[in-house]
Amino acid sequence: MRVSRIVTLLTDFGTADSYVGEVKGVILSAAPDVQLVDLTHDIAPGDVAAGSFVLGRAWRRFPSETVHLAVVDPGVGTPRRALAAEVAGHRFVAPDNGVLSDVFAAAHADVVSLPVPADASRTFHGRDVFAPAAARLATGAALGALGPAVGDLVHLAPRRVRTEGADVIGQVVHVDRFGTLVTNLPDDAVAAGAVVQVGAAGTRHAIPVAVTFADVPPGSLVAFIGSGGTVEIAVRDGRADAVLGLARGAEVRARPG
Amino acid sequence: MRVSRIVTLLTDFGTADSYVGEVKGVILSAAPDVQLVDLTHDIAPGDVAAGSFVLGRAWRRFPSETVHLAVVDPGVGTPRRALAAEVAGHRFVAPDNGVLSDVFAAAHADVVSLPVPADASRTFHGRDVFAPAAARLATGAALGALGPAVGDLVHLAPRRVRTEGADVIGQVVHVDRFGTLVTNLPDDAVAAGAVVQVGAAGTRHAIPVAVTFADVPPGSLVAFIGSGGTVEIAVRDGRADAVLGLARGAEVRARPG
Amino acid sequence: MRVSRIVTLLTDFGTADSYVGEVKGVILSAAPDVQLVDLTHDIAPGDVAAGSFVLGRAWRRFPSETVHLAVVDPGVGTPRRALAAEVAGHRFVAPDNGVLSDVFAAAHADVVSLPVPADASRTFHGRDVFAPAAARLATGAALGALGPAVGDLVHLAPRRVRTEGADVIGQVVHVDRFGTLVTNLPDDAVAAGAVVQVGAAGTRHAIPVAVTFADVPPGSLVAFIGSGGTVEIAVRDGRADAVLGLARGAEVRARPG
Repeated sequence: MRVSRIVTLLTDFGTADSYVGEVKGVILSAAPDVQLVDLTHDIAPGDVAAGSFVLGRAWRRFPSETVHLAVVDPGVGTPRRALAAEVAGHRFVAPDNGVLSDVFAAAHADVVSLPVPADASRTFHGRDVFAPAAARLATGAALGALGPAVGDLVHLAPRRVRTEGADVIGQVVHVDRFGTLVTNLPDDAVAAGAVVQVGAAGTRHAIPVAVTFADVPPGSLVAFIGSGGTVEIAVRDGRADAVLGLARGAEVRARPG
Repeated sequence: MRVSRIVTLLTDFGTADSYVGEVKGVILSAAPDVQLVDLTHDIAPGDVAAGSFVLGRAWRRFPSETVHLAVVDPGVGTPRRALAAEVAGHRFVAPDNGVLSDVFAAAHADVVSLPVPADASRTFHGRDVFAPAAARLATGAALGALGPAVGDLVHLAPRRVRTEGADVIGQVVHVDRFGTLVTNLPDDAVAAGAVVQVGAAGTRHAIPVAVTFADVPPGSLVAFIGSGGTVEIAVRDGRADAVLGLARGAEVRARPG
Repeated sequence: MRVSRIVTLLTDFGTADSYVGEVKGVILSAAPDVQLVDLTHDIAPGDVAAGSFVLGRAWRRFPSETVHLAVVDPGVGTPRRALAAEVAGHRFVAPDNGVLSDVFAAAHADVVSLPVPADASRTFHGRDVFAPAAARLATGAALGALGPAVGDLVHLAPRRVRTEGADVIGQVVHVDRFGTLVTNLPDDAVAAGAVVQVGAAGTRHAIPVAVTFADVPPGSLVAFIGSGGTVEIAVRDGRADAVLGLARGAEVRARPG
């Protein structure tokens, strides 16, 4: 019986409808002593990959025992499973559609399948399946009490890094509010003297690798190890996504110096 | 003396100004032990009907005793009254402009009129009238201690369902973030074999009634009983508002099979 | 050892990335009993002046002892200092870039410089410097325990009010969600009979001063003492910024009657 004082919420519900409020009300009705913590409700509608990325960075900063509700669920109403999971002492409730991929990539997961009550709305499992399960976990239910163990989970196709000679080639995995391009290139791909290349042959940019913004003049492109531990491409006091015309999925190449 | 641990907030203040923070600060200064729960601050400016709809769905999910502050208040500074109310064990503070219409439609309400302090800002009763009243209710004040009982409240003109032969005719009452059209057609208007019709004669769409998204192919229109208990019109993996060119207020007809 | 139950958050992180969640997780890991209160995460990217304005209005509404984290930090990664401060019993953590200007203008400040750990991300001091400092203050650390006292702080150039004969001339200091123009003209600049003038010679508007919206017909311009104690210009049921084509920094003149 491990009780959590904290339940985090990550959804694609936006903040103009009643959906976030309904989920919060259901959790607080069953677990009135938890603190609800909004991670985000602004995942683009149905963007499971973005949900996985954001949750994958945020969850590990919370204390052990925290319960994380992650509902980006374009398949609600299809036979996709509803899950509860335990990873490194944290608990999760989410649809089985890959939104937990980044969490599952971090450590071993114990996972159970949540039953869907007969009277649950067919289009709002956030309120009728995941919120009650989050409240049960927060109030001390064991994972195994919520449903039968399951395997063979849905994972998003991982964005893989490959090598081409001495080059390391990855992708943009996220574009943040500041227009910074977060890649999956590991820090050791950009040792001293390396440059980062993006764009097609005719419009290729070679971007110097530095420590941070301050190493280049305002308006200049720069690559550095970002706060998530991978290579990021930014423009000091500007937007790299706009300057480079790149979005998630774009190829990024690290070339040793 | 019933104390509430939870105060929910619904406003049209947006989230880029100081207004939400000022309201939160006033409540926590007077009631430091409550948990503030954001329902939404993204009601369109002055859209009392949207505020009423969203609150009307969310409030009942919270535990009894919860205090709900609802400030969509385009008439602030006019002689419109300020209210506190008790409905089914929940407490509310809101302007007397119809933003509580959906709450009042649910159950009997006891309502009092809140005095406006002489030094209250003429344009920010959220901070100077409603937040202090919410804090008093949360810390155990009886409703009657806040002001004199009043009746003759402002109600939004209800969107009514009518019949035409065997057809049931209602309206779109809300368009959500996913472009789904929420109507006021009751579930029993779409028994087996019924279709839902929208649009003018030349562009009329007949939409099949199903159980959920999964019953139609991606990109197809479908009508089903939504999570609020009424008929909704959606496009699987798409936006019904864009496909149909419809907005709040559009007429929707259920025709038996 | 003064413990705070409340930590407020003001950032320009937006709400679609992991950054807000990471900051919240770090604080709750070190101070699990605090209530996190979102002031706003929607300050425009890098808009230090807007951050200062919003914080300057909101902080004083919270109870004494509250810890306020304010991270609008375009200079992260440059040698700008990281600060913790105490003002009128409240505590603050923020970069030394002027985002605390409106707070510092209100009362005496004791200020210390926060050390930056060697392993802190160069681009995310919100998570690695300010969140841990906020948690330490919330759990009872004395300000002086966080770093050495410093002076010579960065202040935004104040927007000054000047006089020209009997006229008082100020500026628009903020445009809010409703399109209302908040100025720095003090209340005593608009005594009985005064008018407020905006715009260039050919397009000058003379706006009547009234008590509130209700004193003019819908669609009309009106000036009044706003909820922050200074003159505001609004359009009843409309947007003054759009009607007048004015933005932050525009000159505003009060002419006695």
